[in-house]
Amino acid sequence: MRELAAIVGPEHVEEAVRVGDTARTGRARARVRPADADEVAAVVSWCYEHDLAVVPVGGGSGYAGGAAPLDAEAVALSLDRLSAMRSFDPGLWRMEAEAGMTTETVARRARESGLLFPPDPGAAEQSQLGGTIATNAGGPHAFKYGVTGDWVTGLEAVLAPGEIVRVGGPVRKDVAGYDLRALLTGSEGTLGVVTAAWLRLVPAPEAQLPIAAAFEDVGAGCAAIERVLASGEVPAAIEYLDEATMEAAGGSLPEEPARALGMRMASGSGGASSYANGRAPFVLLLEADGAREEALRVRDALLDALHEGEGLLGLTAPEAPGDVRALWRWRAGVSHAVTARRGAKLSEDVAVPLDRLREAIEGTLRIGERHGLPACSWGHAGDGNLHSTFLLAADHPGERERADAAAHDLFALALELGGTVTGEHGIGVLKARQLRHQWTPAAVAAHRAIKDALDPKGLLNPGKKLP
Amino acid sequence: MRELAAIVGPEHVEEAVRVGDTARTGRARARVRPADADEVAAVVSWCYEHDLAVVPVGGGSGYAGGAAPLDAEAVALSLDRLSAMRSFDPGLWRMEAEAGMTTETVARRARESGLLFPPDPGAAEQSQLGGTIATNAGGPHAFKYGVTGDWVTGLEAVLAPGEIVRVGGPVRKDVAGYDLRALLTGSEGTLGVVTAAWLRLVPAPEAQLPIAAAFEDVGAGCAAIERVLASGEVPAAIEYLDEATMEAAGGSLPEEPARALGMRMASGSGGASSYANGRAPFVLLLEADGAREEALRVRDALLDALHEGEGLLGLTAPEAPGDVRALWRWRAGVSHAVTARRGAKLSEDVAVPLDRLREAIEGTLRIGERHGLPACSWGHAGDGNLHSTFLLAADHPGERERADAAAHDLFALALELGGTVTGEHGIGVLKARQLRHQWTPAAVAAHRAIKDALDPKGLLNPGKKLP
Repeated sequence: MRELAAIVGPEHVEEAVRVGDTARTGRARARVRPADADEVAAVVSWCYEHDLAVVPVGGGSGYAGGAAPLDAEAVALSLDRLSAMRSFDPGLWRMEAEAGMTTETVARRARESGLLFPPDPGAAEQSQLGGTIATNAGGPHAFKYGVTGDWVTGLEAVLAPGEIVRVGGPVRKDVAGYDLRALLTGSEGTLGVVTAAWLRLVPAPEAQLPIAAAFEDVGAGCAAIERVLASGEVPAAIEYLDEATMEAAGGSLPEEPARALGMRMASGSGGASSYANGRAPFVLLLEADGAREEALRVRDALLDALHEGEGLLGLTAPEAPGDVRALWRWRAGVSHAVTARRGAKLSEDVAVPLDRLREAIEGTLRIGERHGLPACSWGHAGDGNLHSTFLLAADHPGERERADAAAHDLFALALELGGTVTGEHGIGVLKARQLRHQWTPAAVAAHRAIKDALDPKGLLNPGKKLP
Repeated sequence: MRELAAIVGPEHVEEAVRVGDTARTGRARARVRPADADEVAAVVSWCYEHDLAVVPVGGGSGYAGGAAPLDAEAVALSLDRLSAMRSFDPGLWRMEAEAGMTTETVARRARESGLLFPPDPGAAEQSQLGGTIATNAGGPHAFKYGVTGDWVTGLEAVLAPGEIVRVGGPVRKDVAGYDLRALLTGSEGTLGVVTAAWLRLVPAPEAQLPIAAAFEDVGAGCAAIERVLASGEVPAAIEYLDEATMEAAGGSLPEEPARALGMRMASGSGGASSYANGRAPFVLLLEADGAREEALRVRDALLDALHEGEGLLGLTAPEAPGDVRALWRWRAGVSHAVTARRGAKLSEDVAVPLDRLREAIEGTLRIGERHGLPACSWGHAGDGNLHSTFLLAADHPGERERADAAAHDLFALALELGGTVTGEHGIGVLKARQLRHQWTPAAVAAHRAIKDALDPKGLLNPGKKLP
């Protein structure tokens, strides 16, 4: 404690704390809050010298337990004091920000200058840039704009045994060295600690025009997604919500979309059609964006594509900025609404090729049935990325174990469909040892060889992202 | 020879060949042409067992000597027989192609289904997909669309000591393992041999509308680029050509752009303005793309941005598809036209932050002067990526050495400006040992550690991409 205090200052060391994320917490011997990259390097160096584990901690909004120490002697390293905007050149569409800046601050600063930082993984006010890079976080708009790593042109990170390195920078193209930038992105703190990043930005679209559409079943909804792609237009987002998800979250929909999707009777309507019975078997949430005229044109083409096939029950396409924001705010609250259903849930972010999405959605329900747990899913349909969820009563004996068994079956299903056990949350501790089912032994060996090469003592976030 | 022939068939082994690329060739003990990934793995395995170097060879259009063996005992491994389209799902915007397929075939197959494979590094009919992935090749449209790696969702590769691995696939998001896909991309055959890739595609833009504009000097042209960015529009390409480049290449410009840019008098024109004297001090080549109306709108906004400032001498904005193709075909021939000037050239693809582009362009000329060599540059202005070039007479004694010294100064300039020694061609053999000037020792150590971890015997393309 005394030596760590000498590095970061006594007011920035706490003894015996619990840290972690939404999925898991754990005890650490100490938490330190360094002020800058030099102090991060000094802390890592000290830990490496004393054979103590280092667990980098961001905003704590992760879903895989990546920030939970597994070893009570570990040192938790909070990045929250590294929150400076080192440089911002709106005219050049770029920014250099420290790891502890919240995702919302990054996005807001860009927005205030007419620019967009596209990654929108949720929990923007809590999540920190370093954490979103360490998990390579996605989000609804990844379909058009890609994931966090696609917007990182350079990284500053501390590698073992405590050295600051910078790869890339404000330059937009660089093939000089191996792509350490990409290797660190998504490595969940197991290869190094991200301390700052150079980000590229783009001009913000003038208009964002969502469409919410209800279909009579999963098959009709998935067929509509394929028609959307065949239209030759690029939606900014293609999200879906299945029936049980809508049961949980539909009640908080604003009035107009709720009516249009059949979740609520139009007040005073005498002749409601047969679907207006408070259920929406399958909902798609699309968005067209761009300059206003172009966004309108794309939206019309998407509407045509949705209307072309069978099974469309109703749709709505709000235009007023307040209505658009309300719809996305509702979407951002879906996870909480589902949790509220029974008090707890186990949710896994498997991803599959788009043509296997229907099987993954229906398979999720079958796995839930098999284990006696209510199940549902929603997520980033265009990327084939589900949030497959099993609902739990937190205090019900045996349910947690059944949910773990269900998750195991879900991972097997994702792999059988040619997918991945994690599309955007990472392996963390929850999915440790799943990669060996996804990759062949030779690929797993390469994964291990890289870990051993960059962290020979195995002290950087040990137990996480294990293959 | 007998054992290699047993793997690939005697008709697919040649003894004592020279192989390489446009920059460098070298002697190999044998060249083998395996038929599939299994045979690639068997060849790598055999070489690893017998301590023989393996040099992967693609289309030979590289600029850094990456495909030239440095050791006459090496086995050159040509990927050209791995040219199958394993799967193509136009409706799902994706393709799985083998490494030996030419970039043009990939692009054409996409185009025939209304899709775009955006990377356009040049030499499309010669270059092969595996090589463009191994170098993470860029091209003019990388400004909007990114580089090759941005379109690769999965890789099949042979790693040492001869094992096929598959990472990613037709799934669009995957954060399960370390990003081996990105690590192999751009690794120039030094970590593994790419045998196939899953590619994502996008709907092809309906219209591509270029603008060519001449400015009175580098400063006025670079100021125009910053106005273009400030316009809030995203051009598909922002290319530039400096005065000496236009001297070399301007003669082959089609009539209309040549006249508009002041490279040729309008025939019969009595009152040509003062700049119509056969020189264009600085030329920008922009492109707006998208749905037709949107592309026209963006083009108008770009034209406004170009017109707003000082120093615009003339511009042209062709719309007829034939004229558009002619302009880009001319752009693709610039490198050859520059070579023809004196018979040979040394061209380096440094990249700098966009706000340092002017200094890099002017610095290239000063370096040429200092070494007594005519110099010029052109390239991907929006990405700050120059092709800084020193013109040589192939048979003039001492010029090659002076050019090498000039390149050395150029690398130093790029680093001083916060850039990289290579934006898109790679390190190869020509830029070996430059990375240690760009990266700190700790980052270089990480680069070496990764190489040692994945290629412990150092037999995969030895001598290439050395830090």
